[in-house]
Order: sequence, then C-alpha cells, then structure tokens
Amino acid sequence: MVKALTIFGGTGDLTFRKLLPALYNGSVSGAESADYQILIIGRRDYSTEQYRELARGWVQKFSRLPYQDAAFSRFAARIEYYRMDFSEASAYAALDAFYAARGIGEHIFYLAVAPRFFGIIAEGLASVNGAPQGKVILEKPFGENLAAAKALNARLEAIFTPGRIYRIDHYLGKEMVRNIETIRFSNPLFTNLWDARFIECVQITASEDVGVESRGGYYEEAGALKDMVQNHLFQILSIVAMERPYEFNGADMHAEQLRVLRALRPVGQEPIRDTLLLGQYEGYQQENLVDPHSRTETYAALRLFIDNDRWRGAPFYIRTGKKLQKREMEVAVIFRRPRPDVARNVLIIKIQPTEGVYLQFNIQKPGDTEEITQAKMDFCQSCLLENRINTPEAYERLLGACIRGERFWFSQWDQIETGWQYIEQLREAYRAERLPLVNYAPGVSGPKEADFLLARFGHAWFDDD
Amino acid sequence: MVKALTIFGGTGDLTFRKLLPALYNGSVSGAESADYQILIIGRRDYSTEQYRELARGWVQKFSRLPYQDAAFSRFAARIEYYRMDFSEASAYAALDAFYAARGIGEHIFYLAVAPRFFGIIAEGLASVNGAPQGKVILEKPFGENLAAAKALNARLEAIFTPGRIYRIDHYLGKEMVRNIETIRFSNPLFTNLWDARFIECVQITASEDVGVESRGGYYEEAGALKDMVQNHLFQILSIVAMERPYEFNGADMHAEQLRVLRALRPVGQEPIRDTLLLGQYEGYQQENLVDPHSRTETYAALRLFIDNDRWRGAPFYIRTGKKLQKREMEVAVIFRRPRPDVARNVLIIKIQPTEGVYLQFNIQKPGDTEEITQAKMDFCQSCLLENRINTPEAYERLLGACIRGERFWFSQWDQIETGWQYIEQLREAYRAERLPLVNYAPGVSGPKEADFLLARFGHAWFDDD
Repeated sequence: MVKALTIFGGTGDLTFRKLLPALYNGSVSGAESADYQILIIGRRDYSTEQYRELARGWVQKFSRLPYQDAAFSRFAARIEYYRMDFSEASAYAALDAFYAARGIGEHIFYLAVAPRFFGIIAEGLASVNGAPQGKVILEKPFGENLAAAKALNARLEAIFTPGRIYRIDHYLGKEMVRNIETIRFSNPLFTNLWDARFIECVQITASEDVGVESRGGYYEEAGALKDMVQNHLFQILSIVAMERPYEFNGADMHAEQLRVLRALRPVGQEPIRDTLLLGQYEGYQQENLVDPHSRTETYAALRLFIDNDRWRGAPFYIRTGKKLQKREMEVAVIFRRPRPDVARNVLIIKIQPTEGVYLQFNIQKPGDTEEITQAKMDFCQSCLLENRINTPEAYERLLGACIRGERFWFSQWDQIETGWQYIEQLREAYRAERLPLVNYAPGVSGPKEADFLLARFGHAWFDDD
Repeated sequence: MVKALTIFGGTGDLTFRKLLPALYNGSVSGAESADYQILIIGRRDYSTEQYRELARGWVQKFSRLPYQDAAFSRFAARIEYYRMDFSEASAYAALDAFYAARGIGEHIFYLAVAPRFFGIIAEGLASVNGAPQGKVILEKPFGENLAAAKALNARLEAIFTPGRIYRIDHYLGKEMVRNIETIRFSNPLFTNLWDARFIECVQITASEDVGVESRGGYYEEAGALKDMVQNHLFQILSIVAMERPYEFNGADMHAEQLRVLRALRPVGQEPIRDTLLLGQYEGYQQENLVDPHSRTETYAALRLFIDNDRWRGAPFYIRTGKKLQKREMEVAVIFRRPRPDVARNVLIIKIQPTEGVYLQFNIQKPGDTEEITQAKMDFCQSCLLENRINTPEAYERLLGACIRGERFWFSQWDQIETGWQYIEQLREAYRAERLPLVNYAPGVSGPKEADFLLARFGHAWFDDD
C-alpha cells in the first residue's frame, strides 16, 4: 500500500522554509518520511516539474544537510503537485480518484493553511477513501479565539478521531524541551529534590531580541500571551511540574501535563496585579500592519501557583517578550537557600539558542579564605560540534514522531483548551481592573515593573550573565 | 612584643623547598607570617649572611611568586641563623638568652626534624621563657609506630597543651579538600541527598604515577597504609562523612570527624578479605634503600563501613598506590541508580592535579531518540588561570592558619590515634589470615584483585576517562 504525505498549503512559507527542507533531510538520512510520496496541494497553477524546481531553490537555501543534485533528484521524484481549491467541497471527489490512481492507501495530511480552512478540508477528506483512517497535522493558531477553536476542534474530531490529530508545538521538538523529562526523572540528584520543600521558585524565560518584523498582522491579534504563553510556555511549565507519568508514553504524559494545568490556582484567588503584567515595546505601534493605537501586549510576566502537594508554596514565574536584550529561552529551577548568607543553587536548562544544562552552586573562594562564592558547572550540548551538525531539526523530528505515532511530541486539545481558558480569564481580570499596559524601551531585559512584581515577593529574575 | 617563628631543622629539605619559599611569598603578599622574625636553628656552621644567600637560591628555585631582589632583601632581613645542637638539653639556656636579647615574647616553633627529636626539643623549650605559651608545628610521621607516637605525644603534651600543637597534614591545605565542607553544607542539592538512602558508595582515590623515588628508606617502613590512608585519606573520608558541625570551627569539626572514625565498623565484623587488599608494584624490591625481599605494600584498597544512621549500607572505598597509570586524587560520590537501565549520578571532587567539581548525570541523547546517555557538567577551578596564579600553596595557607589559630586546618591527635589504631588492626588481621601481597605491573590503574574486591559487591571503581 502506497503511503502519502499530503501538504495542503504547499506553496506557503511554512512548506518552503520548513517542510520541504525537513523532508529533503529525511530523504538523505533515510528517516521514516522517506517512505512517503509527497503530494503538494495548492491553488496556484504549477506543473509538478515546475514545483520541483521551486522546491530545489528552497532546499538549497534552508536545508540542514548539504544540497546535492543526485540526492535532490531522488527526493524530487517523490513529489507531485496537485492543483486544487481545497475550500471547495466538490473538489475532493477528484482528489479521491487521484489517490486511487496511485494506489495510495495510507495517509498523513499536513494542513499548512490558515485555521479557517481546517474544517472544510477535514469535511472534504471525510469522503476520501482511507483518509479518516490517516493522520492529520495542524499548526497553531488553532482558531481565532477560544470559542472558534473549540468549534473547529469539534468539526475536526467529527471526522478524525482525537488520536489521529497531531497538533504541532514546535517547541516540543526542541532537544532540551524533550530532555526536561530525562533530566527530571533519570537523575536522582534532581528527582529527589523536585518539589516546593527544596525548590523556591521556577522561572521560565522566552525572550526575543527582534520585534514583530513581517508578522505584525498576526501578532496584533495574538499578543505575547496567546503567541507564547498559553501554548509553548504552558507546555514547558507542565513538563517541569508534572508528576511522574506511569509510563513515558503520550497518553500518560498528556494526562499528567493536563493535571498540572488544571491545578493552576484559579484566577481571582490572587490579586491580578500580583499575577500578571503586560507590556508593549516603544515603537510597536509604528510597526507594519499594527494599529497605531494598539493595546496588544508584546511582553508578559506571570506569577503562577500550582495548587497541589508538590508545588504548594513555590511560584512559577514566566516571562516572554519581543525586542528585549537577548534571544534566550531557558528554565531556571531555583532551590531554597541553605542559609541567608549563601546563594541559591540554580539548575538551568537552556533551550535556545544555546542548548545545555548548567548548575550554579556554592564553593569556597580560592585562597586563604572562608568566603563562599558561586561556581557554574556547565554542560553545553550545542557546543559539541558533532551534535550541532547531526541534530535533526524540530520539523524533521516531529514528522518522524507523527509517522511513528509518538503523540507525546504533540500538544493535546484538552491541554490547549485548559491553558487558553486560563489565559483568557487572566486577561479578562487584567482588563477588568484596568491595569496598565506598561511601556519598555527596546533592548532592556524587561519592563522594570516585571522586576517589581518579583521583588514584592522577595524574588528576582534569574540572570546568568 | 617581638614575634618569632623558629624553625628547628632549618637546613633540611622541607625548610628549603617549602617553608622558605612559603615565607618569602607571605612576605611579598603581606600575609600574617610577614610580622614574624624567622629564626633558623641548625647544627651546621653558617653565619646568618651565609644562610640568607643559601635561602636566596631556594626561593629563586621554588617560590610561587617571582623572585625580586628588593623583596628578597626585605624578607632576608627578618632571617637569623642560630647554630645549636637541639638534642642537647643544656643548649636551651643560651637559646632563652638569645630570644631575650631580641625581645621575643611570642613564639611559633616549627619542628622540621625527625620525630625522635620532638620530645627533647619540647622538653628543652619548657625552660625557655614564654615558649610553652607559644605554638608548635609538627610534621608526620608523628612516630615510628603507634606506641612510640603515643609516648611522644604524651611528652609533647606535658609541655605544650594540646591546643598549642599544630600537626600538619598538608592535604588539609589543598583547595578542594577545604572545599568539601562548603560543597556539602552550602548546596542544598547535595546536602539533602548526602546519606546512604541516596548514595550507593563513596570512592576516595589517591594514585601516583611515580614509585618511591629517593624516599625508599622512609617508604619501606611506612607503606601505603601508613603513608596515605591513616592520615590523609582518613581525613578526607571523615570530612566527606561527618555530621554537620554545630559551628565550622576546629573543635566542632574535629569532634565530628572523630565520631566518623570511631564509627568505622570494627575490624573482625567483616571478613578481612572483603575489607582490605594490599599490593606491591613489580620492581619495588629493586628500588634504592628497599629490602630485596620487602613485604611493604605500595598499593592498598579498602572497603569500609561507617556504622551510623547516615551511612549504614553505603560502603566507602579507598584506593591508593604508587606506580599507577596516573597521578590523581579525587572523591567520587556515587548516587543510587533510579532504575537498572540508567547510569548512576556521580559527583566528583577533584583534588589534584586538577582542582574542580564535576557531575555526571543523565540526559537524552541528541537526535530523534529516546536513548539516555551520560553528560558531564564541569567546574574546573585550576583551569581558571587567575586562580592558578594567585592561589597560595598549602604551606603558605597552613602557616597563616596556625598564626590565626584556625585549628581545623590541622589534624588532631585523637583522630590520628583512632585512624592509626584501626589501620594497625586491619594490617594485623590481614597478616593473621595470610592474605597475599598481590603484584601489579607499573602503569596499570591498580591490581586486578582490587577490581574483584568491588565486583563481588556489585560495584566498580569509578573512572572518568
């Protein structure tokens, strides 16, 4: 039975920049995706030959592995272009015949399109032979707002069972996010101390040094909370905080992650000013496709509590923003001080751009002294040259994981819904109290108000510089 | 009141190679020892001027800080040579007059002489005005055997109270030995896991790549147990294993260290073959000043238990030897595995020649895999160039510590006696069972029998290469 990966939106940016290079690399390295025919569906008028030439250019530009003519020819031979208006329900009968003519019986559908097309494509595929038994891959945003996303999800799940829907959160494909689970559960040094008795707080940072660039239109609707917190950072938070899954499979891990999100202290129990801070960088309103009076946040800082036995008393701090001092994503696990005169032990998991783990600990200052100072033990994974070259990128990994059915690499609807709902409640409470959208100058580490938020509770943002 | 440091044995190797350079460095850096007149006592016929010239040569050769004429002149001006047969009780009246003429009222005596002179010197000093109120510094060996050492100690303590006797264990002056206490007690990450529930075993390694060299005569009498284990390695063991001292002062730390040594499982409770292994390198009997039929051990491996609540069930392994693969002194704290398929976490404290701390932990292998691999987080103190240059050496630190009265930098008689007695019992049991002195080839990591010793109990010597 011939297997096919069908990409809806095959002439879009995601396909060109990420999917085609990932599939080419998979072809060269003999990954699972190499067994698949690649059907590109688009509305533009290309021949397969024309599309293959187009693909060549993008692969040359973005492939991790070096471009080679022979390798590309082998890869391109698997690509076929199929012109179709996928928003037309009537177009799917022809698609069915097209698949039948090629003997394709095993399907993966990649919906690299705007969410408003998810429903119509799914419903169109309902009549395609074997399609509902296939897998479907979606990218965020999963809808314009929570209500729309819920409705859309219901339409999708009416055709594809929940276990067949793979929602990409490309941060879950990152080495060090995948590694959190191993670091936590395979190292007694950390496993045995992973609770509020020993941990004072956890800090999750995702800062970008760039602004919205060409994505002003999208970002204006999303803002930092929806763009980063409710999905990526809540994923990370829940992996850091979850109980040990009975098995490390998708179902068990998702169940544990969901329990964390459900245990977030209900909005309203803490004053909202102690929970959330929103900011906007100076100049954002002058960005392309941005409302000159925009109230969209480009920065968010959160102070959250997980009300369960493990975490009661240890806040989780999250901060994310654009146009900040540096590009950096990391988790800092800050252990309680042994005594007031000694610095805290900190375990830092660096996610990007550096990938690695380091530990800040206390040591006696060299020389004839009793003074204690801090030292760092460092493990830099991305510094190991062989790894950097050989490491498949997020999309390569995620395609393989989807083919193998490894669902824990993907985000689950109930997690998304729970996180999204929580974020909407927070935002609503912020609005209701008329709390300000604070300004910050491009290049700072964050608005000073975000420092005050932590300082009020005796904490400070961890900074390893 | 003029202060003086008097060195008995001022024309010996220790004085030339270690003490004079340390005092010169102290003079340059303005250490506490710079306030002291330096009186060199020897039996040879030197003038002070001649001795100063001699000292210049040794300082030039062995000083950590660069030799400079002006600095040396300032230093040398504090040196006076005093010729005396210190084994003659009648000679001390003149010494008393010599001190009186110079107004010296505050004393430190450094006995850089063989232990057979300790008693006569102490008794001679009893009649020197102010001497018994001073401090006396001793080097090991503290006697030829335990009985002789006890008798000698009694003679010393009849003149100098125990609190005035400073016994040098130069390993206690090493950065990373001093640091064990800080690493253990100022890092919750380690403090909270520092017991047999979490630690599977502790391994203390002190291997040398050289043989006995010019010290065959001394070594032939001592052997590895007396040369290394009963003093240096028992010091390290007891710092690693001790309970938290009430305060980090000499008295409290010594009390805790002593409690560890007293809690060593009594010899006889375990089969001696499971406790001790002795070896001798091939070619030792041909070394200079060594008996051609020598039964002296140049290698010892020990499996010890500390019978208290903290350590019940976690053995302490010690190994030390000469003519081994490399020069290395380190402590490896090996944590229990979380599951059989995962490697153990190991904390390594490197004492020499590298100084630092590293942690071996588990991490997910890079790439599209669930495989777990080991990574190292590393903190290399001696790799930091500024430290290497600025770090005072053991003798500089120990002189300062003695002046300040910091007794925890020195070994205490009751510790020495307890350790020595334990080692003598072990050796006696080994002899009584006629266990073999195993041979090993120069350049190996140890006799294979030492590997079997651990393998019988499911362990292996930790090796970080």
